[in-house]
Amino acid sequence: MSDKPILKSHRRPEVQTSIIPVGNARFGDGSYPVIAGPAAVESEEQIMRTALSLAESGASLLRSGTFRAEHSPYTFKGMGKEGLWLLEKAGHEADLPTVTEVIEPGHVELIADHADMLEIGPDNMQNFVLLRDAGKTQKPVLLHRGASATIDEWLMAAEYILNEGNGNVVLCERGSRGFDPRTSDTIDISAVPVVQRLSHLPVVIDPAPANGDADILAPLALAGRSVGADGLIVSAHVDPGASMAGNGSQLNLDEFARLMDQLGIPSLRDEIDRVDRELIKLIARRLHSSVEIAIIKAAKGLDMRSPDREAELIEEAVQDGLSLGVSREYVESLMTTVLDHSRSAQQKAIGS
Amino acid sequence: MSDKPILKSHRRPEVQTSIIPVGNARFGDGSYPVIAGPAAVESEEQIMRTALSLAESGASLLRSGTFRAEHSPYTFKGMGKEGLWLLEKAGHEADLPTVTEVIEPGHVELIADHADMLEIGPDNMQNFVLLRDAGKTQKPVLLHRGASATIDEWLMAAEYILNEGNGNVVLCERGSRGFDPRTSDTIDISAVPVVQRLSHLPVVIDPAPANGDADILAPLALAGRSVGADGLIVSAHVDPGASMAGNGSQLNLDEFARLMDQLGIPSLRDEIDRVDRELIKLIARRLHSSVEIAIIKAAKGLDMRSPDREAELIEEAVQDGLSLGVSREYVESLMTTVLDHSRSAQQKAIGS
Amino acid sequence: MSDKPILKSHRRPEVQTSIIPVGNARFGDGSYPVIAGPAAVESEEQIMRTALSLAESGASLLRSGTFRAEHSPYTFKGMGKEGLWLLEKAGHEADLPTVTEVIEPGHVELIADHADMLEIGPDNMQNFVLLRDAGKTQKPVLLHRGASATIDEWLMAAEYILNEGNGNVVLCERGSRGFDPRTSDTIDISAVPVVQRLSHLPVVIDPAPANGDADILAPLALAGRSVGADGLIVSAHVDPGASMAGNGSQLNLDEFARLMDQLGIPSLRDEIDRVDRELIKLIARRLHSSVEIAIIKAAKGLDMRSPDREAELIEEAVQDGLSLGVSREYVESLMTTVLDHSRSAQQKAIGS
Amino acid sequence: MSDKPILKSHRRPEVQTSIIPVGNARFGDGSYPVIAGPAAVESEEQIMRTALSLAESGASLLRSGTFRAEHSPYTFKGMGKEGLWLLEKAGHEADLPTVTEVIEPGHVELIADHADMLEIGPDNMQNFVLLRDAGKTQKPVLLHRGASATIDEWLMAAEYILNEGNGNVVLCERGSRGFDPRTSDTIDISAVPVVQRLSHLPVVIDPAPANGDADILAPLALAGRSVGADGLIVSAHVDPGASMAGNGSQLNLDEFARLMDQLGIPSLRDEIDRVDRELIKLIARRLHSSVEIAIIKAAKGLDMRSPDREAELIEEAVQDGLSLGVSREYVESLMTTVLDHSRSAQQKAIGS
Repeated sequence: MSDKPILKSHRRPEVQTSIIPVGNARFGDGSYPVIAGPAAVESEEQIMRTALSLAESGASLLRSGTFRAEHSPYTFKGMGKEGLWLLEKAGHEADLPTVTEVIEPGHVELIADHADMLEIGPDNMQNFVLLRDAGKTQKPVLLHRGASATIDEWLMAAEYILNEGNGNVVLCERGSRGFDPRTSDTIDISAVPVVQRLSHLPVVIDPAPANGDADILAPLALAGRSVGADGLIVSAHVDPGASMAGNGSQLNLDEFARLMDQLGIPSLRDEIDRVDRELIKLIARRLHSSVEIAIIKAAKGLDMRSPDREAELIEEAVQDGLSLGVSREYVESLMTTVLDHSRSAQQKAIGS
Repeated sequence: MSDKPILKSHRRPEVQTSIIPVGNARFGDGSYPVIAGPAAVESEEQIMRTALSLAESGASLLRSGTFRAEHSPYTFKGMGKEGLWLLEKAGHEADLPTVTEVIEPGHVELIADHADMLEIGPDNMQNFVLLRDAGKTQKPVLLHRGASATIDEWLMAAEYILNEGNGNVVLCERGSRGFDPRTSDTIDISAVPVVQRLSHLPVVIDPAPANGDADILAPLALAGRSVGADGLIVSAHVDPGASMAGNGSQLNLDEFARLMDQLGIPSLRDEIDRVDRELIKLIARRLHSSVEIAIIKAAKGLDMRSPDREAELIEEAVQDGLSLGVSREYVESLMTTVLDHSRSAQQKAIGS
Repeated sequence: MSDKPILKSHRRPEVQTSIIPVGNARFGDGSYPVIAGPAAVESEEQIMRTALSLAESGASLLRSGTFRAEHSPYTFKGMGKEGLWLLEKAGHEADLPTVTEVIEPGHVELIADHADMLEIGPDNMQNFVLLRDAGKTQKPVLLHRGASATIDEWLMAAEYILNEGNGNVVLCERGSRGFDPRTSDTIDISAVPVVQRLSHLPVVIDPAPANGDADILAPLALAGRSVGADGLIVSAHVDPGASMAGNGSQLNLDEFARLMDQLGIPSLRDEIDRVDRELIKLIARRLHSSVEIAIIKAAKGLDMRSPDREAELIEEAVQDGLSLGVSREYVESLMTTVLDHSRSAQQKAIGS
Repeated sequence: MSDKPILKSHRRPEVQTSIIPVGNARFGDGSYPVIAGPAAVESEEQIMRTALSLAESGASLLRSGTFRAEHSPYTFKGMGKEGLWLLEKAGHEADLPTVTEVIEPGHVELIADHADMLEIGPDNMQNFVLLRDAGKTQKPVLLHRGASATIDEWLMAAEYILNEGNGNVVLCERGSRGFDPRTSDTIDISAVPVVQRLSHLPVVIDPAPANGDADILAPLALAGRSVGADGLIVSAHVDPGASMAGNGSQLNLDEFARLMDQLGIPSLRDEIDRVDRELIKLIARRLHSSVEIAIIKAAKGLDMRSPDREAELIEEAVQDGLSLGVSREYVESLMTTVLDHSRSAQQKAIGS
């Protein structure tokens, strides 16, 4: 692709990563919004209960199928328009923006009117008419990579949307067809940084494990955040075993809450407990490191006190604090406490 | 494989994850040892300088090729025995255990005598004679997954080693052959948790990016740790452009140091700076959360002070601290500082 | 799929292979119709000249793109309706039934009105809305396998068409995405007999070589016939280098004529020359075999003449001839000539 | 690979296809020798009965495993040396050259002493030490393509053998790992002509069907010949169900004989029957074509007789015959018979 003209999806020196807002969620700003929901809207009660629970657990978008692409003509194709109204209602109640798949050009307008984001699934990544029509709206589009699409083909699919004037594209890496049934469709984690360097579009991941095992999903979700993905898709259902769309790799609502907890996306109260625990761990690490240094210095006969270094440390911390909205006074008193205890532990350790 | 007899490599209820020590490094204990070194030993100066620098940056093992498997008969095959002596010497100097590839049964004993770990590369994963002979030693073996091996085939290869009585096998996921040259050989990150559930053997990853771009390696290394891998392989060379083995995806020594820093494996001095920065970030987060709560409480007309909750928070923190070797006094003075500032910020926010 | 309910596309004991007629061509009756034409209709002159030449060379259907699925939004998408009228006209002039791709549900009716067969390309194999709508017509449908579709998924796509009441589906194996750029998309020749045993639908192949080399296409076309495929797709253009759709693997018209000749689909005059050449080769083989037998018999002291065997041979040949519309008299005189010469060559060889 | 130095395996203008003789079989001369035998030598009776039957059915080489590469350490690894002696004996009795797999460098000499061809399996295609050692003999080597090897990597593996001075390499395409269990490992038929244009080495195919179905093997074997492969590998066993090596895709001996018959590799007696049948088919085709021409000529009012054309036809046939060792007299009398009957059928058809 190097000898081709620059594409609209490509990163150029003067182009920042695109930040795509959908409701309160933002893709591409360094956050890790979680898009969650059941494979299909099945009833008002099902989608309502699921939506409220997901919101409470920290989900950022509500996603569910209403017109569904299914490999067999004999399986549940979704509730259609009625499903769309219910999804809209559930999103409203739970204060979550909604996303649902669009599978034919004729439905683009309808879905754009009732959902906050259009989803184009892997089977339709090269349905160029659909891409073009999605590009004629200004709705954000969640564009899955096809099961055997190269990264360049995926970006070319995005180009169809961008070229119509709709720049609100979020890419989704969801695994490529592979030879090992234990992991296929195999999530291509390296696609995330590769695409982020090629393109200015945000990239989320949908790491539904091949074996549908909730235990496998959590490490993959964590890996997705570490690799720098701009968000996560998780399927969750109030009762996966009873799902009309196959339980696939849908979590139940408790599993979803636990996953969010592992990702560190908790309630405010939990947040404070968590911070305090980390605070204590950090000062413990700091204490032990400073004691080790003291022992080495003592062995080498070096002077223990370095008042200049301490003053420097405090000032750096103050500057950091100010940039984060913490007052000089607060940081100084904190650092004084920390350094005092550090010093006395050092003295105790070297027996002086 | 479910209907087959249980394999020695399989996890059974009564079997813990195997912890495989190699020198001071331990695979499978929850740590993330980094195996690093140049593709090939090329000279005494090259391997010595590289080894000392990698050790300083925090590497846990020194890895380099001495007898090398190369796809072409016309490229550098390694220094052979002389390379092996140099690797041994460099490992000794830098105080790092060593690992080097063994490519034929006739060399197993030789390499076992002079290195701390045998490496069996992806091309030889189904060289069953070599596997068997490696199993006849008690040396730890680093067993790469073949480029198109299924997980079950990989475990069967490990079984050849285990079946000879050598249980010291560390698996290495290093990417499978795929259709997209931008990411192939494509790292199969989901293989890590899948194998860890199937088998008690530790699994490291070798995420050398397809495009050899150092910028891509860092996020993959971080993702490897998040997904729960038991270690990391990174190629690093004192001067990648001059490497006799192709610069492939070898980092230079500064890039390696930076990567280790991103992984949070720094020097002691750096550690303290880092902790202070995190400390300040944490108290900022805590401050903002408590202000948010205050605003909500005020809106609902609820009482701001909750002395019981504060006492409880302090006591929890003290207990956490004690378990980590931090004194009651230290924690109490820290938490008092934190809570005082929290309270005054809350009052300021709600204008009371 | 073995435990699933029988599908309409599946072969059942009582179901014969479906024979799908399109104009004078028939898919599934043991013949090997060739579907040929340029990637896109570009002008009246281009499609007219191409169509007449292909017909003269023995093509059975005329295929060309009018509304085209292209991976990039910036390349030629076809002449649309005008292209469709020109294709219809060219098919009429050359007396060839026509086939063209349909890429959106809204065009199904239009194309069904003006072409003899609808083509659904690999990118749209899982565009289920399009499949369903094609199923609502009675037009024959040429359904390509997706680049990473399993055989079962391909048959499920066909099922969408069959389930709407249109049984006129011809499958097309056109290669799967693979890791070797020298052969990918790699034609899966074994899919032909596998599908023919699973399903009653005819299967053609589209073996366009990865490297666009006309020399590679001929052996693949021959292999397709040998493996039992029900037809062949070949792209051919009056001037491939000037094609607006990329020259891809389009043959020029002379290369196409040569390919047809290699497939033994020649003009009547050529046919007679060819038969005569084969006739002479066969009697030479027969002569040499009978001489070898004579030598062995002589060595063993066995009697040379076996008048009963000769009479039997002649009678068998006569019966074969009668079943093919050749008179007894003709066969008897032919076989007498053959046997006489055989006998005299034998006698000469053993020196009697 | 275009910018790399020319390899010894590459085709250069002045280099013809290499013809590799193994016993009476020749690879690369346009023939299609069949390499057949059981997966493993299991007993004297088993290999002897199999060898004699395969020879009778027309096999050209006897192939069986003696030291076997198996994915599991717990399955049958072959009879080793004893198996090798038995294979040698069976080959001698059945007058077939033998081929068996070599899986470690230490065995190369032993196997080269007792078999006519060394086989290097797909798992060892990149066992470079083994390749090098096989190159140090002058024995023909049958080199399988690895399950995910590119064509260029395969030729590089051959290069290891050629570079040691052994030019007797026969390549074997045996299928690549794919995503569809119904056809994987998927035979890459297009690799045959692609390799034949890149390299002067002969290429055989081993199209063992994924599902082990003998019915699928026959069309693949025919396709292999049509695509221009230089030979075929077929597994056959006296009692596949009782095979110690798994029945895999081994044919029984009757199925093998039937396959050879479908390939037109019959006994002498069968050969004559077959030729006669083809002879009759050909004259029937000729008769019908000439009648069609007569009808067209009559419709256009053209003269029926063209004595010049007839004389020309006879003379061409005579020359063809002479080049194949058939006398002028024989061809003239044959062609006179054919033309007489042609003429009278024409007259009858047009009612003159």
